[in-house]
Amino acid sequence: MSTFGSVFRVTTYGESHCKSVGCIVDGVPPGLPLTEADIQPQLTRRRPGQSKLSTPRNEKDQVEIQSGTENGVTLGSPIGMLVKNQDHRPGDYSETDLYPRPSHADWTYIQKYGTKSSSGGGRSSARETIGRVAAGAIAEKILKLANGVEIVAFVSSIGEISMNRNPQDETFQQILNTITREDVDDCGPIRCPDVNVRDDMVKVIEKYRDANDSIGGVVTCVVRNCPIGLGEPCFDKLEAKLAHAMLSLPATKGFEFGSGFAGTAIPGSQHNDPFYFDESAGRLRTKTNNSGGIQGGISNGENIYFSVAFKSAATISQEQETATYEGKEGVLAARGRHDPSVTPRAVPIVEAMTALVLADEFMVQQARNATRLAYTK
Amino acid sequence: MSTFGSVFRVTTYGESHCKSVGCIVDGVPPGLPLTEADIQPQLTRRRPGQSKLSTPRNEKDQVEIQSGTENGVTLGSPIGMLVKNQDHRPGDYSETDLYPRPSHADWTYIQKYGTKSSSGGGRSSARETIGRVAAGAIAEKILKLANGVEIVAFVSSIGEISMNRNPQDETFQQILNTITREDVDDCGPIRCPDVNVRDDMVKVIEKYRDANDSIGGVVTCVVRNCPIGLGEPCFDKLEAKLAHAMLSLPATKGFEFGSGFAGTAIPGSQHNDPFYFDESAGRLRTKTNNSGGIQGGISNGENIYFSVAFKSAATISQEQETATYEGKEGVLAARGRHDPSVTPRAVPIVEAMTALVLADEFMVQQARNATRLAYTK
Amino acid sequence: MSTFGSVFRVTTYGESHCKSVGCIVDGVPPGLPLTEADIQPQLTRRRPGQSKLSTPRNEKDQVEIQSGTENGVTLGSPIGMLVKNQDHRPGDYSETDLYPRPSHADWTYIQKYGTKSSSGGGRSSARETIGRVAAGAIAEKILKLANGVEIVAFVSSIGEISMNRNPQDETFQQILNTITREDVDDCGPIRCPDVNVRDDMVKVIEKYRDANDSIGGVVTCVVRNCPIGLGEPCFDKLEAKLAHAMLSLPATKGFEFGSGFAGTAIPGSQHNDPFYFDESAGRLRTKTNNSGGIQGGISNGENIYFSVAFKSAATISQEQETATYEGKEGVLAARGRHDPSVTPRAVPIVEAMTALVLADEFMVQQARNATRLAYTK
Amino acid sequence: MSTFGSVFRVTTYGESHCKSVGCIVDGVPPGLPLTEADIQPQLTRRRPGQSKLSTPRNEKDQVEIQSGTENGVTLGSPIGMLVKNQDHRPGDYSETDLYPRPSHADWTYIQKYGTKSSSGGGRSSARETIGRVAAGAIAEKILKLANGVEIVAFVSSIGEISMNRNPQDETFQQILNTITREDVDDCGPIRCPDVNVRDDMVKVIEKYRDANDSIGGVVTCVVRNCPIGLGEPCFDKLEAKLAHAMLSLPATKGFEFGSGFAGTAIPGSQHNDPFYFDESAGRLRTKTNNSGGIQGGISNGENIYFSVAFKSAATISQEQETATYEGKEGVLAARGRHDPSVTPRAVPIVEAMTALVLADEFMVQQARNATRLAYTK
Repeated sequence: MSTFGSVFRVTTYGESHCKSVGCIVDGVPPGLPLTEADIQPQLTRRRPGQSKLSTPRNEKDQVEIQSGTENGVTLGSPIGMLVKNQDHRPGDYSETDLYPRPSHADWTYIQKYGTKSSSGGGRSSARETIGRVAAGAIAEKILKLANGVEIVAFVSSIGEISMNRNPQDETFQQILNTITREDVDDCGPIRCPDVNVRDDMVKVIEKYRDANDSIGGVVTCVVRNCPIGLGEPCFDKLEAKLAHAMLSLPATKGFEFGSGFAGTAIPGSQHNDPFYFDESAGRLRTKTNNSGGIQGGISNGENIYFSVAFKSAATISQEQETATYEGKEGVLAARGRHDPSVTPRAVPIVEAMTALVLADEFMVQQARNATRLAYTK
Repeated sequence: MSTFGSVFRVTTYGESHCKSVGCIVDGVPPGLPLTEADIQPQLTRRRPGQSKLSTPRNEKDQVEIQSGTENGVTLGSPIGMLVKNQDHRPGDYSETDLYPRPSHADWTYIQKYGTKSSSGGGRSSARETIGRVAAGAIAEKILKLANGVEIVAFVSSIGEISMNRNPQDETFQQILNTITREDVDDCGPIRCPDVNVRDDMVKVIEKYRDANDSIGGVVTCVVRNCPIGLGEPCFDKLEAKLAHAMLSLPATKGFEFGSGFAGTAIPGSQHNDPFYFDESAGRLRTKTNNSGGIQGGISNGENIYFSVAFKSAATISQEQETATYEGKEGVLAARGRHDPSVTPRAVPIVEAMTALVLADEFMVQQARNATRLAYTK
Repeated sequence: MSTFGSVFRVTTYGESHCKSVGCIVDGVPPGLPLTEADIQPQLTRRRPGQSKLSTPRNEKDQVEIQSGTENGVTLGSPIGMLVKNQDHRPGDYSETDLYPRPSHADWTYIQKYGTKSSSGGGRSSARETIGRVAAGAIAEKILKLANGVEIVAFVSSIGEISMNRNPQDETFQQILNTITREDVDDCGPIRCPDVNVRDDMVKVIEKYRDANDSIGGVVTCVVRNCPIGLGEPCFDKLEAKLAHAMLSLPATKGFEFGSGFAGTAIPGSQHNDPFYFDESAGRLRTKTNNSGGIQGGISNGENIYFSVAFKSAATISQEQETATYEGKEGVLAARGRHDPSVTPRAVPIVEAMTALVLADEFMVQQARNATRLAYTK
Repeated sequence: MSTFGSVFRVTTYGESHCKSVGCIVDGVPPGLPLTEADIQPQLTRRRPGQSKLSTPRNEKDQVEIQSGTENGVTLGSPIGMLVKNQDHRPGDYSETDLYPRPSHADWTYIQKYGTKSSSGGGRSSARETIGRVAAGAIAEKILKLANGVEIVAFVSSIGEISMNRNPQDETFQQILNTITREDVDDCGPIRCPDVNVRDDMVKVIEKYRDANDSIGGVVTCVVRNCPIGLGEPCFDKLEAKLAHAMLSLPATKGFEFGSGFAGTAIPGSQHNDPFYFDESAGRLRTKTNNSGGIQGGISNGENIYFSVAFKSAATISQEQETATYEGKEGVLAARGRHDPSVTPRAVPIVEAMTALVLADEFMVQQARNATRLAYTK
């Protein structure tokens, strides 16, 4: 449904063309400094129309906190937030009255609900992610203040052009160790930190844009300073929650963490991450990190990193041979201008979902730790 | 935590060396014919010790239904099931008293809980999956009786040896369309239906087994006849629930569905699945199936297929340079014999988790459909 | 937390003095005719300032649907709703800066959260119930359209003045069988349908109002035409969900259904409701209804009725000897005018919570029924 | 469904005549000393057949921990527990094949599920409470070790014979302040600590027993040393969770806390609990405790006390005129011997459910507190 999380929990509402989109964030502890200024930056990074690489619609997306704070500090009560919808232009989508857009949600929605939002993608719209990003900003602030957690996502492939994501690759590890959100934004709208592939990625997007086509890509995300011990054995392993979070994003096709799919071909003797004692940390650490910071479903204090596949956007202005809802063959050409690649815009959304997962797991673990402490004191 | 699902819901318990492992399945509707004979076959397929490719421990794993049925029919009350633990042999693992096994859960468990199961992997043990498989068998029976749903998983890669999993590949599509569980078992313990790669896969496993090493692989799963309309927009998209389910399995590293990671390089104009009217089905279908049977988070009636990456097993009998819990460098050599590849054994577990996701989503959708019908009648 | 329900689910936000209060209703099936006109009437009935018996603050409380409907019909997506806060006047409450109001939530909030809303009762404010009433109106519409369910609450006691609520009393049963919401409103602001006690109730309230004091009472609620079979055995018995719902309302002290507390003194031989065959219904019914329409946690088709105790409002303008937050003895006299009895205003809120419980249970039961039907067809 | 709690969570299974009844307790922190000896005493107190006042069936009810502990200490993993069913004797109930027992769950179960357990009350059986009591014992141990919480329930009325439960009554307050579980058991099987009414209660039960009839009563429960700040505003107020828990017990008809229903007639000026500074506690306390230890849904550190109404048992051996399932009039006389009053046996069950509510709320509050501490440190 529209709720995510157990103890730190967000519920979202809103389609692309209703009055507003928003969310309620429940379980935020009191005493957290919080104003719109904490939330707006990631919303702004999420916003389309920021470059020639993305759709020129200028959505303002100003968040308004409705409740749960006073004098810039959280009260412990639910935080209602909303962003008004300003740029409806339902006309742009009118041809979808006849044709279900291929590989979009039009047809499945009408099958599921027997009805559909007359314009735009309904609840499957990327606009639905606004509530997630707003909530994620709160989650992230908690994690940063409490543990210095850093969450940075970036584009690691566009079409055939890809960074080396091999866990053994030193450049890749270097990026995971040091990259900041500022670095990512400094890369320009492509949001890829690897200078060796960045320009080629831009060219790929431009090529497909000019062809009224679209192209997919991969977003990689790293979490540094994640507390040790997050994630639950069995169904709620940390990677399971992250996978759930990521695959709940529109247009995703896959998730992998640590060595990922490629790691299946590395024998155990090489894939295993041996332990050593790190004097400065005062604890065991692993020499390699094929595990991606998670072992047995639980964070081990190394960098958590994972990648998310985003398909080529389904909405293209190129003509497509397909069929109408009634089954009549025909040619659909979407009006309006559309993102040739949603991948770069997904960066702050991936970060937001990561923060939501970690804040919830952090609080659940705190419940256990503090309770244990209470009875063993 | 240890509960999965909302309306159809399983809760599991049990470590590798306690009295029993088991589960409670809540929300099973009444009137379903159900005995141990419905559940045992998948448990037996899950069982280790079935071939030279897997560990020779002979676990009996006989399920006993405790409650929720009478005269072979479900009552609507929770179904308690358990499997006694018979083959403890904790001595096999005693060296882990000194060394946390690399890339296993020993160290993270002790960090999370401040304690650990003295022997074996505790809750991270593959033995925990028994409850999932038992519950999945019930879910599957509902889906099969209600909709003729067929869920078949198989090994699609071992190490570097891989079937062609390209959605455009005809052989692959042929397999997805026709493969049965019997076909998979007829492949022998490797459980790979592709005769072109099967023998090479076996050789790879034997090579690593003989080297006291291990190797990973990929399990692909197809769902045929899935009802249209399953999955919830936003957080509980069908692919999100499947990803959650799969990444909650021990030793998994990734999930992809439909065209997956490779699909990110296919431009939208080719990746989109055009619609056509299928006379025999009496409804729209898609000409291609890059979507993997899910669009906008909702099943569209085409085959659902996805792949799950399993890493090389962390427990190997080869010596490993690592450190003790106290940080002293040393060499760990696990005693006992261990699976050189867990991938083939994962097949019934992947099927079980798939069934659990679908049965829950099916029931949630039934709630909505039937309610709507009630007020629009 | 701030979410109620499993399949039909409401999440609320908002304190008394923030920008808006509101809710997200998730799980509403599509195709339900729904506009603000369906929701406003109960909000208006909830509103204070409607008579000399209640507080003269004139809160406008106009609901605005943000999402989830189009052309007056639900889409199946979450329904966001909000009501702007217009009448802040935080000054009225400023003395609470020094004194925690006795039997209010001031002190426990500050203990729980280490912070409190500077003015008013924060989340414990009656204003929080707006989201419940808005959501309840949707739940009620579903129940009415699907099953002709009628939910009517009324005041059954004020202070010492009480209607006869004995299940054996014919007048009481007559009221339960026939009373409508219009009847209740025709009673005037006291909302008590019993002409024998109504005027005395008004006098009691006026007496306490004139003494700057307050007085409690009981609200009784009846549900007619509830579908048979709602409620889950064990933890989610229908009466358990209703009790949870009712005791979650501000100022409540108790809940009883059917024969209630008094029924504990009726021996089983008289308390048991014998069955008979009702020709017109074509099924078994019970001759008496001490069970209050629920047996074994499950609705049996008879009238469901229950009563909820509301304490005398904690906020009175009379001087009270108490202590400041710092523990200094002193006298608190609340400024502003306050409800001498919240009981009559609770009527629509009790109805709303009832509807929320029943709609959720109805949908859960539909999931089971429809699934069973699917596999036994 | 069959799960209760959010962070500390129990799921139960089992009918009266299946192989075993039991539960899984999830979320128990590690490091808690725990063996069967911690759990058995309350199960033994729950057991029927302990005196002439209750049914002579001798159920052994020996609990067996299946998982989650090692060497007498919890591991942090789910704790599976079961009690074998030994005393089936389904023949005792065979007449229910023809007649639905009045005010029992036979008819509603068959309506809800279209099937019923052939013998006994299925899931509505009191035997289902075994899992609750076992889980409650763990919850209680946590609360006791962490906070010195004491939970003591006792019988406060049987039929017309009642203790004075007025919050202003000194004897009643004295009992609340001092009564122990040992005191209650020293009262004999009636479990009423008030010597003034105890013997009369026994006589009442004997009277109804001799008449093959049954009689109801009230159980009152007090919680001492409850941490301040438990309970959530809005839907999960502490009293709402307690009410849910209590009304989920078989045969309950009502719940009230603090001044309860009678308190509705006490004007606010007297009902409000004024604050004073308690030197020994070093904090504010209230002079009176009409609030029953909960204000605004949150515990305030005073004694929490509440009462639960239990109806006269539905199963009596006296003949009852009623109808068969088919609607034929007739006379039902239950075979077997039955409890003339279930109220005394409910005492440990009320205690268990109280502990389950409080442990869950305690852990939720710990999550918030510890998280806050983490970011404000």
